[in-house]
Amino acid sequence: MSELGAVRWSPDGRAVDLLDQTLLPEHETRIEITTVDAMVEAIRALRVRGAPAIGIAAAMAYALEAARLAGTGADVTSLREGLEPAYDRLVSARPTAVNLRWALDRLRARAAADCADARAVARALKAEASAILEEDRAMCERIGRFGLDLLPAGGAGVLTHCNAGSLATGGMGTALAPLYLAHAEGRVLRVYADETRPLLQGSRLTAWELGRSGIDVTLVVDSVAGVLMREGRIDLVIVGADRIAANGDVANKVGTYSLSVLARHHDVPFYVAAPVSTIDVDTPDGAAIPIEQREASEVRAGFGRATAPAGVTVYAPAFDVTPAEHVTAIITDRGVLRPPYGPAIAALVRDARKGTA
Amino acid sequence: MSELGAVRWSPDGRAVDLLDQTLLPEHETRIEITTVDAMVEAIRALRVRGAPAIGIAAAMAYALEAARLAGTGADVTSLREGLEPAYDRLVSARPTAVNLRWALDRLRARAAADCADARAVARALKAEASAILEEDRAMCERIGRFGLDLLPAGGAGVLTHCNAGSLATGGMGTALAPLYLAHAEGRVLRVYADETRPLLQGSRLTAWELGRSGIDVTLVVDSVAGVLMREGRIDLVIVGADRIAANGDVANKVGTYSLSVLARHHDVPFYVAAPVSTIDVDTPDGAAIPIEQREASEVRAGFGRATAPAGVTVYAPAFDVTPAEHVTAIITDRGVLRPPYGPAIAALVRDARKGTA
Repeated sequence: MSELGAVRWSPDGRAVDLLDQTLLPEHETRIEITTVDAMVEAIRALRVRGAPAIGIAAAMAYALEAARLAGTGADVTSLREGLEPAYDRLVSARPTAVNLRWALDRLRARAAADCADARAVARALKAEASAILEEDRAMCERIGRFGLDLLPAGGAGVLTHCNAGSLATGGMGTALAPLYLAHAEGRVLRVYADETRPLLQGSRLTAWELGRSGIDVTLVVDSVAGVLMREGRIDLVIVGADRIAANGDVANKVGTYSLSVLARHHDVPFYVAAPVSTIDVDTPDGAAIPIEQREASEVRAGFGRATAPAGVTVYAPAFDVTPAEHVTAIITDRGVLRPPYGPAIAALVRDARKGTA
Repeated sequence: MSELGAVRWSPDGRAVDLLDQTLLPEHETRIEITTVDAMVEAIRALRVRGAPAIGIAAAMAYALEAARLAGTGADVTSLREGLEPAYDRLVSARPTAVNLRWALDRLRARAAADCADARAVARALKAEASAILEEDRAMCERIGRFGLDLLPAGGAGVLTHCNAGSLATGGMGTALAPLYLAHAEGRVLRVYADETRPLLQGSRLTAWELGRSGIDVTLVVDSVAGVLMREGRIDLVIVGADRIAANGDVANKVGTYSLSVLARHHDVPFYVAAPVSTIDVDTPDGAAIPIEQREASEVRAGFGRATAPAGVTVYAPAFDVTPAEHVTAIITDRGVLRPPYGPAIAALVRDARKGTA
């Protein structure tokens, strides 16, 4: 129930099979992606979204490109050269999401390491992309287990923003994973989903996937969050992350920062749930995270009719940065981090490197 | 330029002429209202909105009803009796807005005081409704002058929420009045307008009327407010009010409370601009202000297409309450109030009663 297969291989393995999230909640439509260009379009248009899911999807598209090149009779050297434009186009599709680069770097390193013929390299890349998908599913489950310990045993009122659920990952999600596990245990949850303008991932996606799983979900416009906290309805806020800097600053969907200020003001715990792959130790703090701007049209005429004067100036950052000091804990797939995050993250990454060495 | 005639008499004086705000910014369409039922519908549907404007509009509709009753040959007693259902229906059209009751009470008192024949009473009520409109225009100008003193002389970045402009009043607005006057003086303003979900009064109305007047306006989704403050773009927040309690607590469009918390966190002055008629000394504090709920459909399918699962639970308060301690100053048509608001409001209302005695 809690896994939706937002990103998976098509049955014959020759395409990436995506649940087109731009059509939810009205239509549950799947599309098959076979080229790098189509995947770049799908990522930019948010047909696939969520930092973990786009990392998986990009890796799969990269592997498909390797198969295509190998099919043309390319040797290993020209295969590697031929993959570089694919890497560049995919990595720039969403500049804020660090998982995208992480996944593609992993495949590129695999291609560089393998000295077999081009077809063998292509097969190895497909296996590597599949491994990223499977690891992501396991990662979600581990985040869920660690997060479960932070939820009140008797149930809770929870506020979340955007969508960090099964639609954002290969598994049951990041921020929503603890909620799915708590619900499965019979804990009583009341989840409030911010609609998350401009693209309404909260109303279109989070409310849809939680409701589908039988979790009590209430939809609110973003500016109701303060009222909910003031009325005592919220026991904790839990959100995902698009990138976490080495000091614990968190880039996530715009509006997350405001929620963190509101949570602090109301003494509500503020949790970020994300895999270790979201942590970018090469980014010292939030100020160094690039923030992409969305199109003005998404604000001016979001869903059909014009709701603002034609040509009005719009400021539309896609993400914002929540400073580490506003974050109560970061729930990762390798455990729960507590402040001060700098040393905690350094230790975690050191251990992770040892673990995979 | 800054007055739009959102509410006025039709040329023959037999109808209320409204700019239908549900059709902005795409269509600038005026409608004529001749009955109480049509005005109740117009108020509920937000064809006319903004606390001052709906007070004026309701008073005009009440006066038209008096003219209709007088035209049937009713005597003064049956005219007064016949107006009671009109009072009840109009006063309940928007329960949070105190100006509505204030304006209707004023007309009802006028009807009770006048002992002439029914036609003379009806004429007196029309004159009284016209007086409320003219006083409102003068009120806006006075708020603008008082507010102007609070704006930095060199220009400023200003954040506003919803629409407390010329579309919300009979004149140039409340929160926007100081901005219109500052712009007329040549001060450089950069105004950020929250789009204000669910009904988008910020994008549809505020961005439209400011842009029309040549003021530099930038539209943002509501959850960008925190980012704007963190980036140092906002020198002050200014909003209107639907009701102000005796202790200075302010009911205004939902999201205002969150802005007040964000402003406090970022040391940004937070101003409320509203006429004295918005102050309800019979309401001791914010907890006593009734908060109407909006329809779930405004959140689930606000832009034409369904953007949330059918039937999902929605929590949609129309207003929220900002505690007095978050308000830097209240700009009224009789001067600027500073904390502590309880004594300041009591003195103001005492003076106002003396002034009109």
